[in-house]
Amino acid sequence: VTELLDALVGDDEIAAHFSDDADLRAMLRAEAALAEAEAEAGLVTAAAAARIGAACATFRPDWDGLRSGMARDGVVVPALVRQLRGAVGAEHGPALHRGATSQDIIDTSLMLRLGAVADLLASRIDALLAGLSALAGRDGTKRLMAHTRMQAALPVTAADKVTGWRQPLERCRERLADLRPRLLVLQLGGPVGTRDELGPQAERIAAGMAERLGLTAAPPWHAQRDRIVEFGSWLSLLAGTLGKFGQDVALLAQTEVAAVTIAGAGSSSAMAHKQNPVAAEVLVALARFAAGLAGTLHQALVHENERSGAAWTLEWMVLPRLAITAGASLRTAVVLVGALTFT
Amino acid sequence: VTELLDALVGDDEIAAHFSDDADLRAMLRAEAALAEAEAEAGLVTAAAAARIGAACATFRPDWDGLRSGMARDGVVVPALVRQLRGAVGAEHGPALHRGATSQDIIDTSLMLRLGAVADLLASRIDALLAGLSALAGRDGTKRLMAHTRMQAALPVTAADKVTGWRQPLERCRERLADLRPRLLVLQLGGPVGTRDELGPQAERIAAGMAERLGLTAAPPWHAQRDRIVEFGSWLSLLAGTLGKFGQDVALLAQTEVAAVTIAGAGSSSAMAHKQNPVAAEVLVALARFAAGLAGTLHQALVHENERSGAAWTLEWMVLPRLAITAGASLRTAVVLVGALTFT
Amino acid sequence: VTELLDALVGDDEIAAHFSDDADLRAMLRAEAALAEAEAEAGLVTAAAAARIGAACATFRPDWDGLRSGMARDGVVVPALVRQLRGAVGAEHGPALHRGATSQDIIDTSLMLRLGAVADLLASRIDALLAGLSALAGRDGTKRLMAHTRMQAALPVTAADKVTGWRQPLERCRERLADLRPRLLVLQLGGPVGTRDELGPQAERIAAGMAERLGLTAAPPWHAQRDRIVEFGSWLSLLAGTLGKFGQDVALLAQTEVAAVTIAGAGSSSAMAHKQNPVAAEVLVALARFAAGLAGTLHQALVHENERSGAAWTLEWMVLPRLAITAGASLRTAVVLVGALTFT
Amino acid sequence: VTELLDALVGDDEIAAHFSDDADLRAMLRAEAALAEAEAEAGLVTAAAAARIGAACATFRPDWDGLRSGMARDGVVVPALVRQLRGAVGAEHGPALHRGATSQDIIDTSLMLRLGAVADLLASRIDALLAGLSALAGRDGTKRLMAHTRMQAALPVTAADKVTGWRQPLERCRERLADLRPRLLVLQLGGPVGTRDELGPQAERIAAGMAERLGLTAAPPWHAQRDRIVEFGSWLSLLAGTLGKFGQDVALLAQTEVAAVTIAGAGSSSAMAHKQNPVAAEVLVALARFAAGLAGTLHQALVHENERSGAAWTLEWMVLPRLAITAGASLRTAVVLVGALTFT
Repeated sequence: VTELLDALVGDDEIAAHFSDDADLRAMLRAEAALAEAEAEAGLVTAAAAARIGAACATFRPDWDGLRSGMARDGVVVPALVRQLRGAVGAEHGPALHRGATSQDIIDTSLMLRLGAVADLLASRIDALLAGLSALAGRDGTKRLMAHTRMQAALPVTAADKVTGWRQPLERCRERLADLRPRLLVLQLGGPVGTRDELGPQAERIAAGMAERLGLTAAPPWHAQRDRIVEFGSWLSLLAGTLGKFGQDVALLAQTEVAAVTIAGAGSSSAMAHKQNPVAAEVLVALARFAAGLAGTLHQALVHENERSGAAWTLEWMVLPRLAITAGASLRTAVVLVGALTFT
Repeated sequence: VTELLDALVGDDEIAAHFSDDADLRAMLRAEAALAEAEAEAGLVTAAAAARIGAACATFRPDWDGLRSGMARDGVVVPALVRQLRGAVGAEHGPALHRGATSQDIIDTSLMLRLGAVADLLASRIDALLAGLSALAGRDGTKRLMAHTRMQAALPVTAADKVTGWRQPLERCRERLADLRPRLLVLQLGGPVGTRDELGPQAERIAAGMAERLGLTAAPPWHAQRDRIVEFGSWLSLLAGTLGKFGQDVALLAQTEVAAVTIAGAGSSSAMAHKQNPVAAEVLVALARFAAGLAGTLHQALVHENERSGAAWTLEWMVLPRLAITAGASLRTAVVLVGALTFT
Repeated sequence: VTELLDALVGDDEIAAHFSDDADLRAMLRAEAALAEAEAEAGLVTAAAAARIGAACATFRPDWDGLRSGMARDGVVVPALVRQLRGAVGAEHGPALHRGATSQDIIDTSLMLRLGAVADLLASRIDALLAGLSALAGRDGTKRLMAHTRMQAALPVTAADKVTGWRQPLERCRERLADLRPRLLVLQLGGPVGTRDELGPQAERIAAGMAERLGLTAAPPWHAQRDRIVEFGSWLSLLAGTLGKFGQDVALLAQTEVAAVTIAGAGSSSAMAHKQNPVAAEVLVALARFAAGLAGTLHQALVHENERSGAAWTLEWMVLPRLAITAGASLRTAVVLVGALTFT
Repeated sequence: VTELLDALVGDDEIAAHFSDDADLRAMLRAEAALAEAEAEAGLVTAAAAARIGAACATFRPDWDGLRSGMARDGVVVPALVRQLRGAVGAEHGPALHRGATSQDIIDTSLMLRLGAVADLLASRIDALLAGLSALAGRDGTKRLMAHTRMQAALPVTAADKVTGWRQPLERCRERLADLRPRLLVLQLGGPVGTRDELGPQAERIAAGMAERLGLTAAPPWHAQRDRIVEFGSWLSLLAGTLGKFGQDVALLAQTEVAAVTIAGAGSSSAMAHKQNPVAAEVLVALARFAAGLAGTLHQALVHENERSGAAWTLEWMVLPRLAITAGASLRTAVVLVGALTFT
C-alpha cells in the first residue's frame, strides 16, 4: 500500500505503532526491563542493568545491518543484540539479553504496541458512538424507507437506522474489554519456552519485567498464538461492522433513493454532476480486506513445535495491516458520520 | 462433504444440530413460544396459542413443498408458515407467526441450536483437557528434543509439550464463557426490526418468548451479525489450536524423530510398513479449512440495510460447516491424545 | 449444506459427480483400466485383468467397512482394495492394484469426474450466453441509467449491460479451453511417484491406462496440486463473474430504480407486497463463498514431500463444494436471465 | 509491511512497479498516448497533443495535492488532471483527458506495469528452472528417503525431488503464456464504458492508443475484473508452488532428517548451534499469505454496475502485495536453490 493509497485506506496513527522505529524502541524497552528485573533477581549485576538501560536509551541502530540480519536470520534480534552489545560495551555486553530468546523481545515489543493500538481504537469507537448519538439526536425522527433483500419494505426512522449501526459497536467495545487482559501479556520464555536459562528466579524475573512494562505476567506462549488471532478477529469484526454501516450509506445515498446526503462527497474526472459516496465505499472495501486478512491470520495458528518461522512470519505480514485497516475503518466512519444528513 | 469424507472430517453429533429436521423442530418451538408469549400479552387468544402449540408439536411438513419454497423465496419460512397454518386450521391460522418475520424464526432457531452446540463443544474441551492431563501424568517426565524453526533446539519434557497444547484450550474455554451471554439471544423484530407489528406489548412478548426458549431477550438484530461472526471466529480459534497440536504430533511422529507413537495409526495401500499419523494430519486440515471458513464468515458482516439476502445466505453456507469442523477437530483430538505415547 | 439449503445454493447435477457412489464407480474404472494396461504390458496376466474387470463391473461395497477404513487410514483405498480383492478371489486378487498407490486411484477417479464436470459447466456457459443474447435481442435498445460508484451516471442501453455480463463469460470459456488439457491427466506413480513398482514397462502401462480412461498420460503428480488449484480458481472466477451479474440485477431491481423486473421473484412471510430478487442475491452469496473456498484451496498447494495427508484432505473438503457452487451459480444465472426484463 | 520485514518478504524490483511514482509515470504515458491517438483521429488538434505530450514528459506533481484528491475522490485522477491541465496551459488543457474517465487512465497504467511485472517474473521462473537443473545435474543421483504423510516411505533420488519441484513451475510458465494476451489490454471506455464521448472515431482512437502503449486493444472492461483476478490467481499458484518447495526443504533440512544442507542458514540469538532454514520457512509463509490475498482478490470480482468504488479499492489493496509476494517467493527460491546441497 503506497502513500497515495494510504491516504484513502491507511491510518497514520495506527501505522506509527507498527513502524520499524516503534518496534525498535519497544524492543529496547523490553531489553532494558529484562536487565533490570534480572538485576533485581541477582542474575546480572546492577551495574550491568544500569549500563544496558543507558545504552538502550540512546541506542541508534545501523539500519542496514538490521535489514541484512533480518534477511539472513528471519528475525531482527540476533543482529540487534550484536549491535546493542557493542553499544553496551565489552564488560556488560554479555549481560544483555541474558536468558532470553529473540521471540521474547519481539513478542513483548508487539504487546507493548498492541496495548497502545487497543487504546486508540477504543477511544475512536467512543468518538464514533458519540457521532452516531449526535446524528440520531439531530435527525432521528426523520422517516425513511427500510429495505430488506434490496427492496423497499416499510418505513422506519433515522433513529432506527442509527441504532442498528450503534449496537454492534457497543458489543465490540465490550469484547475488547473481555479480551484485553488475555491479550496484553509479557513474553519471556528463553530459547524453548521453559525459562530454564533464567534459573530459579525465573518467575520473579518475569514478574519484574512485566511490571516494568505495564504488561501482565504469563507463562511463555511462543507457539500459542491464540491471543493474537483473537485480537485480529476482533479487528475484523470491527471493520466488518463499519463495512455494514458504509454499505447502508452507499445504498441510502443512491441517486434514486436519496435518503441521506454526504457533505463533501467525491468528484469524478468525467462527470461533474456526480457526488460519489467515497467514504462509504471505502468502508466496504476495508471490511472485505479485513475479513480476508483475518482468515489468513487464523492460518497462522498452526505453529510447528516450539516456534514456527513460517507461521510467525505470516502473522507479521498480516496483523499490522489488519490493525491499520480497522483503524482506517474507524477514522473513515467518524468522518462519514459527521458528514451524513438524513433527508 | 460426502458420507465417506465425513467419516474422516465430519461430526455427526454437531451436524445433527444443523440438520433440516433439527432446524424445523427449533423453528416450531419458536413459533409456539411466540404464540404463547403473544397470548400472555393479549395479542392473540389463549385458544389460538394452544392450537398453535398443539399443531407445532405434531406437525409433519411436506418437505418437497419446503424445498420449493426455499428455492423460490430464499428462506423456508413463507412455505413453512403456509403449511403450518393449514395444520393449525382456519380459525387460528392467522394468529400464527403474528407480527414476526421469517428471520425472527430462522435466527431464533439457530440460537436454540447454537446453545446446544456450544454446550457440546465445551464438554469436549473438558474431555480433551482431561486427556491431556492424563497424558502429562503418565509421560510428563520423559524428555524429548524441542524444535524451533524446524530444527532441534534443546531438550524439554513431555509435560512442557502438553502444557503448550493445554493453555490455549483453557483460554478458549474462557472465551466461550465470555461470548456465550452475548451470543444466545432471541431474535424478534418483525418485518423491519422495529417490533411495531407486535404493538405496545412488544417488549413483554419478546421477554416471554425468550424466557420460554431459554434465550436472553435482546433488541432485534436482523442485520447485526457480529454475534454469529464472533462465535465463528471462536470456532476457528479452537480448530486452529487443535491444528497446532496435530502439526506437532505429525512432526514428532516422523520416522526420523520418533518422539511419539500413535496407537492405531493408518495403513497404506502400497507400503505395509507405514504407520500414518492420520488423525494428526486431519487436525491440520481441519484447522486450515476452519480458517478459510472464518474469513468467509467475516465477509457476511456486510449486510445491506435491514436484511441482506446475499450476506445471510453466505452465513448459512459457512457457519454450520465451521461448527462441524471445530467439532470434528475436538472429536479427533480426543482420540489422538488417547492414542499418544511419548517414547 | 442440507437438502433445504441445497435447494437454494446446491446443484444436483454437479453434486452427483462428487457423490461417494460416483467416486467408487470411477475408482473401479481406474482399477480395471490399470489391470488391462498391465496385462497388455505383461505385468499381470490377461486372465487376471479379465477377472479384475469383471469384479469391478459388478462390485458392491460394504459401505460401513469403507467408512471405517476411511476414518482409520485417511483414504478409502486400502479398505476398498481389501474388499475388492475379496471379490476378485484368491487367485487373481494379488494382481489388483499392482504397483499402484491409493492416490493413483483417487486422483484418477477425480480426473474422470472433473472432465464430466467441466463439460457440464461449459454447456451451461453456452446456455447462459444464449440466454443473454436473447435478452439483448429483445430488450437491447431499451435505455437505462448507468451507475458508477453507486450513483446515477449517464444513460446506456440494455445491450450495453448485457455486453458487460457476456464478455467475462466468454473469456471464462476460453480459459477452460486453455486449462482443460493441463487438467485432465492420469495419475499413476506408485507409492512414491517413481513408477518403479511398474517395472520397465511403466510408461507403456501409464499410456495404456490413460487411453482406456480418456485421460492424457502425464508424469506422476502426487504432490503437485497446481492443476487442481488452477481449476478451482477458474470455478471461482466463473462464480465471481456471475456474482457481478447478480449484484447488478439486485441493484437494478431495487424498488426506487426499477430498471428491471424479475418474473417469479420471491415472497416474504411478512410483507405481501415484496418481490425479492432471490436469485440475484444468491449469485452474490455464491460468488463470495466461492472466493473464500478458492483462497482455501490455494492453501492446499503446500504439500509435504511426496504426499501430504493434511493438504490433500483440505483439497477434498474444498474442491467439490467449489465446483457445486460454480454449478449452482450457472444454474441460477440461467434461470435469472430467463426471468429478466428491462423496463 | 515495513522496510525491515520487506528485507525478508518483500521484493524491491516488483514493488518498484507499484510505487506511486511508477503509477504516475504510467498514467502520464497513458494521457499522452490518448492525446496522440485523438489527434490522429481528429478529436483534438495536433498542437494540443504535442503540448500534452510535452507537459506529460516533464510534469512534476504536487504530491500533497494528489494525496488530498485521493482521500476526497477515492481516485487520484481528478486531482492529477487538474494539476496536469495547469501544466498543459489554458489553451490546450481542455484537450487533455478528452473523452476519458479516471478508470481509463488508472487501469491502463496498471496494465503497462503488469506487463513489466509479468516479464520480470517470467525471467525469474527461467532462472529458477536453471537453478533446479543445475542442482539436479550436480546432486541428482544421490539417494534419499521419500516421505508420504510425514512418514519415511521408500528411497528416491535427488533428481526425483527436483523433478517434483520443476514440473508445476513449467506449467506456471505455460499458464502465463496463455493468460498474457488476455491480460495486457488497453482500458478506454469513458465515463460509463460506452466510448460515446470519443465520437465516431472511438475504435480508431482506442487502437491508436493501444498501439502506442504496446497493449492490445479491447472493448472497455471497467467492471469486468476477471483479467486481474486470473492474473492474481496465477501469482498465488506460483507462490504456492514455491511454498511446497520451501516446505520440502524445511522438512528435509530437519536435524533428524538431514537430507539437505542449506549454505548460509540463519542464526539464533539464543542457540549458537542452530542453522535455521529461514528461506524455506519464508517460502511457506509467502505461499500462505498469497493464498489469502488471492481469495480476497476473488471477492473483488463483484462490482456494482458500471464501476464499484468498493470492489475496485479492494483490488488496489490486494493485487500489488500479491505480485510482490509472488516476486519475493521467486527471489527467495532462486537463492535457496543455489544454497541447497543434497547430502
